[in-house]
Amino acid sequence: MKNLDINNLRENYNLDHIDFSNVRKNPIDLFIDWFNFEKSNNYKDVNACVLSTVSSDNIPSSRVVLLKYLKNDEFIFFTNYNSNKGKEISCNNNVCLNFFWVNSERQVRINGKATKISEDDSDDYFNARPIESQIGACVSSQSEIIDIAHDFTNDVEHFKFLHKNKKIKRPNHWGGYSIIPHKIEFWQGRPSRLHDRLLYEKCKEDWIFKRLSA
Amino acid sequence: MKNLDINNLRENYNLDHIDFSNVRKNPIDLFIDWFNFEKSNNYKDVNACVLSTVSSDNIPSSRVVLLKYLKNDEFIFFTNYNSNKGKEISCNNNVCLNFFWVNSERQVRINGKATKISEDDSDDYFNARPIESQIGACVSSQSEIIDIAHDFTNDVEHFKFLHKNKKIKRPNHWGGYSIIPHKIEFWQGRPSRLHDRLLYEKCKEDWIFKRLSA
Repeated sequence: MKNLDINNLRENYNLDHIDFSNVRKNPIDLFIDWFNFEKSNNYKDVNACVLSTVSSDNIPSSRVVLLKYLKNDEFIFFTNYNSNKGKEISCNNNVCLNFFWVNSERQVRINGKATKISEDDSDDYFNARPIESQIGACVSSQSEIIDIAHDFTNDVEHFKFLHKNKKIKRPNHWGGYSIIPHKIEFWQGRPSRLHDRLLYEKCKEDWIFKRLSA
Repeated sequence: MKNLDINNLRENYNLDHIDFSNVRKNPIDLFIDWFNFEKSNNYKDVNACVLSTVSSDNIPSSRVVLLKYLKNDEFIFFTNYNSNKGKEISCNNNVCLNFFWVNSERQVRINGKATKISEDDSDDYFNARPIESQIGACVSSQSEIIDIAHDFTNDVEHFKFLHKNKKIKRPNHWGGYSIIPHKIEFWQGRPSRLHDRLLYEKCKEDWIFKRLSA
């Protein structure tokens, strides 16, 4: 039995607060404010977020994905459609995205429904990726069990040999998902765990907001 | 309609790799290795992780929690039992923890079942918290809707006035959860998205491991 005693690790968040007297009407505007603040600080992987999905037997699963577009108020990421997340989304497309921007002591939690984007839009993004990432998408069967000593270098070299001077086509099993949000919460860490929380919920075409207790 | 065009944000992970020829037999050992590495670098909030739960209508929900102990191979965090996460766990105790250590390009994904720890153990941790955090736990009805202009300072002052010179008792609605893991995946970012993934699954009393495709 192994132990790790870390109850003395403790940050007291105090960098900022949410000004509840002057709240953005639209959460997408606030998301863009916060996102651009992270980006302007050149923090690493500011577009990384944890995507949670649910299996057919109601077990949650989460992994990091990278937000690639926020388009018409929808959050878009790309993946292998045959991965575990793809399989889970095909049965239950309720998902949650969690951005935790630790340096700013901020968190954004997004609930919504995920659907595949159009093949054309997936092609556009695939074609804009570096060739090495295109090859990566072609040679990996994401989430499948592989030999412990597997060497992807061989796969990549073999693929390059077969596709010399040819444009690499997006594989059918690879593409984007768009998340249409219906709930977005903004969280700003505060001293003594009395954090600021602002929840937006979609009500027909409008967003309404509420403050939540810490 | 708002847009954010960020498809040019791109990190090519290359800091480390998993040595598949020399794998730890027990994932808890590997977790401790990776955790201590983060801690030794003094990164902020290395014990922060995203906890995912599932609602009774099979919608995932995720938020950051802080790991406070790893004890007898179980992962322990503390919260308000009446919060949304507490309510969801009481109906479905399948949860997922996701640690994303961005500076090391590492991720650990833990699946397990959450149960409340003993009242004595919750008391022990509560009594070790700073008094301001103890008061915070007493005055906040976590996740409840509150007035947009609510001022916690008043609640804290009122609580202090009522409890002058008295030891603060842990409220019944506040305590720890312990997660018994049955699946732990280690992910190390690699160039061109051909990441290293090592999955451990509990099989009776033993852990077996497999390598997963990127």
